[in-house]
Amino acid sequence: MGNTFGKLFRLTTFGESHGKALGAILDGCPAGLALDLEKIRMEMQRRKPGQSKITTQRKEEDEIELLSGVFEGKTTGTPIGILIPNEDQKSKDYAHIANAFRPSHADYTYFEKYGHRDHRGGGRSSARETAARVAGGAIAKQLLATKGITIQAYVSQVGEIRLEKPYTALNLDLAEDNIVRCPDPELAETMIAHIDQVRKDRDTIGGIVSCVIKNCPPGLGEPVFDRLHAELGKAMLSINAVKGFEYGSGFEGVTIRGSQHNDAFEQRDGKIHTLTNHSGGIQGGISNGEDIYFRVAFKPVATLMQDQSSVNTAGEAVTVSGKGRHDPCVVPRAVPIVEAMAALVLADYLLLSKTNKLEAI
Amino acid sequence: MGNTFGKLFRLTTFGESHGKALGAILDGCPAGLALDLEKIRMEMQRRKPGQSKITTQRKEEDEIELLSGVFEGKTTGTPIGILIPNEDQKSKDYAHIANAFRPSHADYTYFEKYGHRDHRGGGRSSARETAARVAGGAIAKQLLATKGITIQAYVSQVGEIRLEKPYTALNLDLAEDNIVRCPDPELAETMIAHIDQVRKDRDTIGGIVSCVIKNCPPGLGEPVFDRLHAELGKAMLSINAVKGFEYGSGFEGVTIRGSQHNDAFEQRDGKIHTLTNHSGGIQGGISNGEDIYFRVAFKPVATLMQDQSSVNTAGEAVTVSGKGRHDPCVVPRAVPIVEAMAALVLADYLLLSKTNKLEAI
Amino acid sequence: MGNTFGKLFRLTTFGESHGKALGAILDGCPAGLALDLEKIRMEMQRRKPGQSKITTQRKEEDEIELLSGVFEGKTTGTPIGILIPNEDQKSKDYAHIANAFRPSHADYTYFEKYGHRDHRGGGRSSARETAARVAGGAIAKQLLATKGITIQAYVSQVGEIRLEKPYTALNLDLAEDNIVRCPDPELAETMIAHIDQVRKDRDTIGGIVSCVIKNCPPGLGEPVFDRLHAELGKAMLSINAVKGFEYGSGFEGVTIRGSQHNDAFEQRDGKIHTLTNHSGGIQGGISNGEDIYFRVAFKPVATLMQDQSSVNTAGEAVTVSGKGRHDPCVVPRAVPIVEAMAALVLADYLLLSKTNKLEAI
Amino acid sequence: MGNTFGKLFRLTTFGESHGKALGAILDGCPAGLALDLEKIRMEMQRRKPGQSKITTQRKEEDEIELLSGVFEGKTTGTPIGILIPNEDQKSKDYAHIANAFRPSHADYTYFEKYGHRDHRGGGRSSARETAARVAGGAIAKQLLATKGITIQAYVSQVGEIRLEKPYTALNLDLAEDNIVRCPDPELAETMIAHIDQVRKDRDTIGGIVSCVIKNCPPGLGEPVFDRLHAELGKAMLSINAVKGFEYGSGFEGVTIRGSQHNDAFEQRDGKIHTLTNHSGGIQGGISNGEDIYFRVAFKPVATLMQDQSSVNTAGEAVTVSGKGRHDPCVVPRAVPIVEAMAALVLADYLLLSKTNKLEAI
Repeated sequence: MGNTFGKLFRLTTFGESHGKALGAILDGCPAGLALDLEKIRMEMQRRKPGQSKITTQRKEEDEIELLSGVFEGKTTGTPIGILIPNEDQKSKDYAHIANAFRPSHADYTYFEKYGHRDHRGGGRSSARETAARVAGGAIAKQLLATKGITIQAYVSQVGEIRLEKPYTALNLDLAEDNIVRCPDPELAETMIAHIDQVRKDRDTIGGIVSCVIKNCPPGLGEPVFDRLHAELGKAMLSINAVKGFEYGSGFEGVTIRGSQHNDAFEQRDGKIHTLTNHSGGIQGGISNGEDIYFRVAFKPVATLMQDQSSVNTAGEAVTVSGKGRHDPCVVPRAVPIVEAMAALVLADYLLLSKTNKLEAI
Repeated sequence: MGNTFGKLFRLTTFGESHGKALGAILDGCPAGLALDLEKIRMEMQRRKPGQSKITTQRKEEDEIELLSGVFEGKTTGTPIGILIPNEDQKSKDYAHIANAFRPSHADYTYFEKYGHRDHRGGGRSSARETAARVAGGAIAKQLLATKGITIQAYVSQVGEIRLEKPYTALNLDLAEDNIVRCPDPELAETMIAHIDQVRKDRDTIGGIVSCVIKNCPPGLGEPVFDRLHAELGKAMLSINAVKGFEYGSGFEGVTIRGSQHNDAFEQRDGKIHTLTNHSGGIQGGISNGEDIYFRVAFKPVATLMQDQSSVNTAGEAVTVSGKGRHDPCVVPRAVPIVEAMAALVLADYLLLSKTNKLEAI
Repeated sequence: MGNTFGKLFRLTTFGESHGKALGAILDGCPAGLALDLEKIRMEMQRRKPGQSKITTQRKEEDEIELLSGVFEGKTTGTPIGILIPNEDQKSKDYAHIANAFRPSHADYTYFEKYGHRDHRGGGRSSARETAARVAGGAIAKQLLATKGITIQAYVSQVGEIRLEKPYTALNLDLAEDNIVRCPDPELAETMIAHIDQVRKDRDTIGGIVSCVIKNCPPGLGEPVFDRLHAELGKAMLSINAVKGFEYGSGFEGVTIRGSQHNDAFEQRDGKIHTLTNHSGGIQGGISNGEDIYFRVAFKPVATLMQDQSSVNTAGEAVTVSGKGRHDPCVVPRAVPIVEAMAALVLADYLLLSKTNKLEAI
Repeated sequence: MGNTFGKLFRLTTFGESHGKALGAILDGCPAGLALDLEKIRMEMQRRKPGQSKITTQRKEEDEIELLSGVFEGKTTGTPIGILIPNEDQKSKDYAHIANAFRPSHADYTYFEKYGHRDHRGGGRSSARETAARVAGGAIAKQLLATKGITIQAYVSQVGEIRLEKPYTALNLDLAEDNIVRCPDPELAETMIAHIDQVRKDRDTIGGIVSCVIKNCPPGLGEPVFDRLHAELGKAMLSINAVKGFEYGSGFEGVTIRGSQHNDAFEQRDGKIHTLTNHSGGIQGGISNGEDIYFRVAFKPVATLMQDQSSVNTAGEAVTVSGKGRHDPCVVPRAVPIVEAMAALVLADYLLLSKTNKLEAI
């Protein structure tokens, strides 16, 4: 259980880090969407390992194949089968930890839950699984693009190095110009240097990915349990290594008084807008047409190039040594994953919103 | 849509702030659970308005009635119908805002989404809806109690006043001894005074509720999309006024290096434990048997006893004046709601975990 | 589990035969639907016991109360709480079977499944539960009526007495003119006399309800698992005492050769139609715009006014004697239930069909 | 939508008749199940085309590949990716019907629903899609086998040729000994001859598949909407060409009086049993431990080797000529499909039943 996301626009994924392939089935994509395969590939490239000196040197091409649901370049409304073969499997890198539990990984919890597990590279718990999400999210993005909705994420913090400017003071397009994906070119250099140092220290560090959704029409989001930000939060928290989520004023908002925090309404250009946007584009769980923005906290990568003390399946004390090729900091590669999950949520809620009113049916 | 929570232990709620009644159907509660009605009532009392000088003076008894699913004091496995009549409805308090959009409320977004809405007291978007969650959560708590699982939430921040001690340095049982529900008696007084001042200023303020789950067995949580903390996050973010969620090391964790952040395993008393608990009791989305802890950020209440500028359904500029009886700060009353939602998640994931392994079936 | 029906238009029900009340939550009904309460009451009247000499003499008014989701006569898009109080409870009629398993009832299976059960009147397994379905279905009918879709069911067989004419040769409006709900007035008298005789014999008899859906637009139904007729079949088979379902040519269709069975297409009045309708209005699981028709088989009522041999919870042989007031034949009262379930399916699939094509989004 | 089946044991399928591949993701299979790949292949062989003179001569090897979820021969509890490459694609056989609607196929309804469709071989509506179900069902069967539950289907009618004996008077193991899969060897020959004649007539014929489930423990099935037989009914009706479903006494049962139809309980060998089994092993929607049996009606195949009149997408009259290689009667190949769908239902409900009682949790 737990491998399906969405209510109407539904992505179900499968695959382990070192199995034959990863993949997904995307069900519920409306018919008639012209798919740009190149754009899907581009998203896969943004996530794939081996992009730069600050990401893992592991090589995976992450070529995807669409097996169904697309005919003559357009979606048919039937499920889209997505296949991503695994290639660069160095399974023997993991032989030494077959029976040991790597600290702060999912080895122990999978063992407790399932008894029998594929230990190689973390198996199903590996972040490799997010490749299938990026593929599905890339299709969601193309659906959203037909409505003008755009999603842009970027790195806003690495360790203690924090981008203080709000997104409104940044040119987000600059994020893709550097390998850490921070839209402030100067700070990006500092972040890159920091990650590089951490890597040399055989250590890892966390960071924060911020995300902005523009042109979302008002009315997306369901009342009570399925509020738009609740689903966005779940989507983000479901990404490997995520420890926190906040939207709009977030945790900072608790210190602001209501009289300062409230977003007054006004009419502007014939549309209702708010003067400020502490609400983060969502009120009562439903989009209000303003920019939606949120932040996602990623912990430091658990795999270290250091010896760590742990136990094995028999409960005996063992030393776990870091091997293989791993990211010193996940946030640069997490940017497209955050965007993909946001796109999946928005696409799903866009479809859900189509039956809100009798007059629209 | 959006009014059902859970996969196997499922709560579906209905009801508006000023309608005839609120209520819920709890489906999937196992048969044979001896229900203590007094405990359910006690939880309702903890949430109800009019408890103290720092909560709204609105009076609602929030008496609940169980209409089905319980026979001779025990659950039967069939759905439990829950009814909570509305009593203290001053609907005319809302006549002046029938066509106006209160800033940072859901008035505008419900209007955009549905066209036709019950404006009285926010209708379905009112936090009154959480009464039904507390009732359902109280039953979930009793189910969890049979497994020894306990859930305790408390107020850890009001405005800038922050409880710095970790939960492990606190006696959480003290939280219920004061009206702000902070387990540090001294800080509680400061918080209460602060809320009282904010109230006198006809303003509002936010805060943070922390929550600790003890004795959760390892193995709860589903891989990939339905990670235990992702579902907890969604549950919390679905509560009115919540702007952020973090668990374990949370946002602070991004500044810690992996070598410090990782939780080493050891065997203790014949069981596998971690030496530290930055993971917050969840690894790879699955509980590891350590304490689960998380923090939830609440924004300041949007209803102010002040005039605010806004627009009406025609897009015309209007002034919205605060009327009625409202909380200056929601966190004291949010404590049982946070616990209720956590209980619903845990109960659901406890049931889900029963079919993980062939040997358990 | 199992108390919710539908994906977007979702009815969740609760309540036992002899508990305080039955009820339901209808989630997903679009906003802006003007509800005619009188029509809902009328449907409740059609199902309620005590209507005629051939139905049970038990009295229940089955008054319903809408507790939420409706404001100023129109739906608001939020969940509609439905309450149906239980009145005429003669629980002591059931004291004698508290520990005995009535043959062909659900007493034994509920006992095996849940251990603890409400034995009074069958508890949750009582057909009294269908009152909540009829209430929800009555709202679905009103939604469908805005699209011109109509649903009419009628009794086409009682025991061996079979209405041979196809529905196209009948005036279905006549069905409500007699107490057995058969649109052939002459045959209706024969059926009524037969049921009356069966009743005098202290026995029971089964029958068939046929149903016709007109003006369903093409395009309703989902491919593969959620074919429209599969969902209709499940809906019907979920009604108490149903043993079979067939649509279009049904079981008879197996004897017809393909060359005779195929429905040729033609254009008529600017629309594509079929010349014949063995398909029953559904092809590949999706409505084609022709009439949808199907038949539902009901077994004889299990409660007899006779002594029957059985066992009790201890496995000891006992005699179960019929007491209380029961229907000698369920089909007359099943007619509105069949219509209600059909309406729930159609309403749900109507909403689901709104996101099939990009051009409609 | 509509491509996922099951609640806890969930099969999601993809793929068109003439696309690159079919496949599925099976989520929720408990960990630790030793999978016998040979048995899965054997089920695929039973369904594949080209088996005998009375099935289509189309050749497909239907080799399956398990891409994930299995490690060292056992399931891991994570999703099982299943791939079935398409091989023998004669897509040009379908060029002539790219814009024509074949009578009683899904061409027209898919066109109406989606606008854009893959017309080749019926695309997603092709019965080729059932290959993925058989693969998933084969895994379900292995799960059920660990509990001793067996499922056997057989052909009980072809056209007018009907096997009158009840399943209890048959040796079901004989069904696989002949190409029509009828356990009465003599009648099998008659059926085969009849199908062969129909084939020579360039026509098609329908039939009935009966199915028996043995050793199902009492307690499987959910109350109200998700009754075990309702889900079995939906499962069967979701198979291509199915027009009807009945279980236990079925449509015949409507003519029997309650006093004859009721199944008296007795204790036998320390267990509670019924003397007769008109209930078909299910009472109140929940299994009672007796054999579950049901019948499924299949219409004649819609593809004929004859000219048929129809219309095209422009609404113009056209003649559709039969080409390609098709089954004159689907029931022989439908036998493993019926079993597969029954296995998926039983596996799902087996898992669902694990949380019925507090004492089992």
